[in-house]
Amino acid sequence: MLIQLDRTKPLAFQIQRHLERLIRQEHLAPGVKLPATRELARDLGVNRATVAVAYERLVAEGLARAHVGQGTFVAPERRAGPRTVSPEPPLSMDWSGLFSKASNAIAADARRRQFLSQAGCATRGVISFADGMPDASLFPTEAFRQVLNRVVKREGPALLQYSPVSGYPPLRRFLAAYLLRQGVEARPEEILIVNGSQQGFDLITRTLLDPGDFVAIEQPTYPQAMQTFRSLGAQLLPVPMGPEGLSLDHLERLLERHAPKLLYCQPNAHNPTGLTLDAATRGDLLALASRHRLPIVEDGFDHGLYYDDPPAAPLAAGDRRGLVIFIGTFSKVLFPGLRLGWIVAPRPLLERLEAAKQLSDIHTSPLIQAAIFHFCQGRFLDRHLARLRDEYGRRRKLLLSALERHLPRSVRWTIPHGGFTLFCWLPEGVDAGALLQRALERGVAFTPGSVFYADGEGAHSLRLSFSSVSVSRVEEGVRRLGEVIREALRRPPRRVEVDRAAVPLV
Amino acid sequence: MLIQLDRTKPLAFQIQRHLERLIRQEHLAPGVKLPATRELARDLGVNRATVAVAYERLVAEGLARAHVGQGTFVAPERRAGPRTVSPEPPLSMDWSGLFSKASNAIAADARRRQFLSQAGCATRGVISFADGMPDASLFPTEAFRQVLNRVVKREGPALLQYSPVSGYPPLRRFLAAYLLRQGVEARPEEILIVNGSQQGFDLITRTLLDPGDFVAIEQPTYPQAMQTFRSLGAQLLPVPMGPEGLSLDHLERLLERHAPKLLYCQPNAHNPTGLTLDAATRGDLLALASRHRLPIVEDGFDHGLYYDDPPAAPLAAGDRRGLVIFIGTFSKVLFPGLRLGWIVAPRPLLERLEAAKQLSDIHTSPLIQAAIFHFCQGRFLDRHLARLRDEYGRRRKLLLSALERHLPRSVRWTIPHGGFTLFCWLPEGVDAGALLQRALERGVAFTPGSVFYADGEGAHSLRLSFSSVSVSRVEEGVRRLGEVIREALRRPPRRVEVDRAAVPLV
Repeated sequence: MLIQLDRTKPLAFQIQRHLERLIRQEHLAPGVKLPATRELARDLGVNRATVAVAYERLVAEGLARAHVGQGTFVAPERRAGPRTVSPEPPLSMDWSGLFSKASNAIAADARRRQFLSQAGCATRGVISFADGMPDASLFPTEAFRQVLNRVVKREGPALLQYSPVSGYPPLRRFLAAYLLRQGVEARPEEILIVNGSQQGFDLITRTLLDPGDFVAIEQPTYPQAMQTFRSLGAQLLPVPMGPEGLSLDHLERLLERHAPKLLYCQPNAHNPTGLTLDAATRGDLLALASRHRLPIVEDGFDHGLYYDDPPAAPLAAGDRRGLVIFIGTFSKVLFPGLRLGWIVAPRPLLERLEAAKQLSDIHTSPLIQAAIFHFCQGRFLDRHLARLRDEYGRRRKLLLSALERHLPRSVRWTIPHGGFTLFCWLPEGVDAGALLQRALERGVAFTPGSVFYADGEGAHSLRLSFSSVSVSRVEEGVRRLGEVIREALRRPPRRVEVDRAAVPLV
Repeated sequence: MLIQLDRTKPLAFQIQRHLERLIRQEHLAPGVKLPATRELARDLGVNRATVAVAYERLVAEGLARAHVGQGTFVAPERRAGPRTVSPEPPLSMDWSGLFSKASNAIAADARRRQFLSQAGCATRGVISFADGMPDASLFPTEAFRQVLNRVVKREGPALLQYSPVSGYPPLRRFLAAYLLRQGVEARPEEILIVNGSQQGFDLITRTLLDPGDFVAIEQPTYPQAMQTFRSLGAQLLPVPMGPEGLSLDHLERLLERHAPKLLYCQPNAHNPTGLTLDAATRGDLLALASRHRLPIVEDGFDHGLYYDDPPAAPLAAGDRRGLVIFIGTFSKVLFPGLRLGWIVAPRPLLERLEAAKQLSDIHTSPLIQAAIFHFCQGRFLDRHLARLRDEYGRRRKLLLSALERHLPRSVRWTIPHGGFTLFCWLPEGVDAGALLQRALERGVAFTPGSVFYADGEGAHSLRLSFSSVSVSRVEEGVRRLGEVIREALRRPPRRVEVDRAAVPLV
């Protein structure tokens, strides 16, 4: 720590005032340990007792606490007296004109879709169907801890060192075999390990898209994928997706008119609708793409996380022309926090994706890759998937039957085949953004559908997620939702701006 | 697994041939477990005995091995008979015309800098001064394992769930205090956790640079930073850096002529030279940048990893105008394989970097962040740094004295103040790329200097890294190098194309 000291004036006082400022401005945050008195005295060239005096005064002021034998720490909370925050020093550098076009595009998109803090939803009493994330209470944490611990013991130094960009070889080999069980024939060298599917979108976007390129998407679709394509200036071509699925006729007309660079789709467990394409439609889609030489980015929500019947084989399984890029992730079936996913692509493209990955962050942590490999290898994954199908399946069933009981007949919704969510269409005239305000007051949350639309549509739709709502609260949540919708049908709430909408992360 | 079966023909034979092809084409890699006979029989709608027959034939052919009670596995090596690889099916999709400008820029840069596989250097007998990575044998692996294990036990589910983009709050608070010890005043909310400094370069590039923008760099400098700036079409403006450091006069002329968008520099432990800017030059650089409102990207190789005297405070410590963006990393002082680093920037910029990070990969693994936080919190880091200074310091000293003894007087080199490397200038006429060919034959490796230059210069320079060469081999390695240089001085080797040069990763 560097403190400018005036040697002609009391030193302890100067040190005290300097630290006071750092604590009040939170450069030194609550709970942080102050430097040892010996160390700071040496750094400043003062007597150790001088530092000790400064520290004692901070303790007396309630800004710090001394723990015998451990040192002095910034006080955890500062209740003593009103907190005076010094004004931030003026920034003479004005960054606003310096941002790139890509950064401005991201910011403009973000303004349109104000993110709701996760905490907002979890406030007391609110039953939230807005969180599309898996339920952490179902994580196989203890089994993973044991595998992780064993992996560090056995392969520690190698897993903590730099390693090849393409990924941990045993994991790539495992994935090749794992994909084969779904019908996808991929050699290990056609697989690139990435930090979750989001990095997959990002690398594909950077490798294939230039500003002005067209990208066909299902509509509604996953917002972060749209944002990624848009951040590099791509233009989105929405293909409508109703309760019955994707309209291939519409897609064909778009292909003829705009020749998009690629199609992004989620044939399994589509987010937000939960729909899964049947085998025949998959075949037709592939044939259409093949005729138009249209690359397809297939976002493969895990094949094993389905309800009722298993899904048809991925598009990648039927691809004989090398035009499907498959993205997979462990985020939904295991742990989103590990950020682990993969891309399958033909070698000429995969080489370019590897080069982009190398410049993005060199490689994904081999420690995490090795832990997941050993975890999956040991059959844990299969057993865990069966448990997830069971548990999420129960929540889904409850939600569907509650919707039947409590929602007006004029509301339609999808029957999800997989994933964590379903999608509802409200009667015309009921705006989901405005509805959310009332719903939150009544203690229930959802995601307004417009965030899943590229073109500002979707105002009278919403997404319900059943992954994070415990079985005991589903019924009550839907009852509240039904009440709010009925009320809105009687006297429609004033439509609010879309940018007020509260949107969760996934 | 999906196998198209013709029900009118022998089924076991068809299954056997299908699996044979998958194994020979490595869709099923050596060591991979085949599906359980019961499972495959169900998938294919055949009798279990039929699958068992197919497996037995694969075993008989030497393509698989049966382990009683465990199942059937693809054979680890296939020595029996010549391996017949079926030709790859033709790819009807031609990707070559579909790549983005950014991807083509990356590929063009990569062709100029052919990467040497790490294995290439580690071949028997070659003493390699080419690897700029830390020595894995110095990793505090066991201590880290214990911390990691404890962290999963205590905070498991929360660390495996989605979490905020900005980073694990206790780590951001720790870093604020850690940076303060170096004189940098940063609030936790001015710190963004990223996947190593490479992701820092990437996010800054995407947030601040558009095609055609100028970026001033030290020359020589870190190749992957140059490649990142170039991948988005930025033009590099090299500022020469000799044995005495950076030329500020040259920089000032560039600022006047081209008004670059930013300066990238490494004031501590500069890679490749190992030089560290003195306090006076730092002050002058900051004043110059301030006059020109030039943002500086300060790549802060860890402050604690120095030899002889500790370095002056980072540029960020003296920055009163909010124009320094500081990048830090745990890759050199702890574990590169964890991919953990951070960016410090003024809030208006940091908000944009967070948005870019969110679209890149949502967030960095909180599990790894928490483990590193607890590791550093427990004073392990300080003790470990002292050990590293000691050990790398010994290797550096040995290398410097060996250079004095074995290298011709016409070779000049830098005296590194920190980091893992030093830089040598050979006499004019000795081309380092050509020299490397002879050096490898003689059992010593280095990195040709031209890869650290933006403009094709640097042909008669080279980088020596002392981080991965054990004390016992330094002397012999330098002796061989001296011999090769002397020989080249007598009869200069024919200059080879730069793209033949062998370049390590870091």
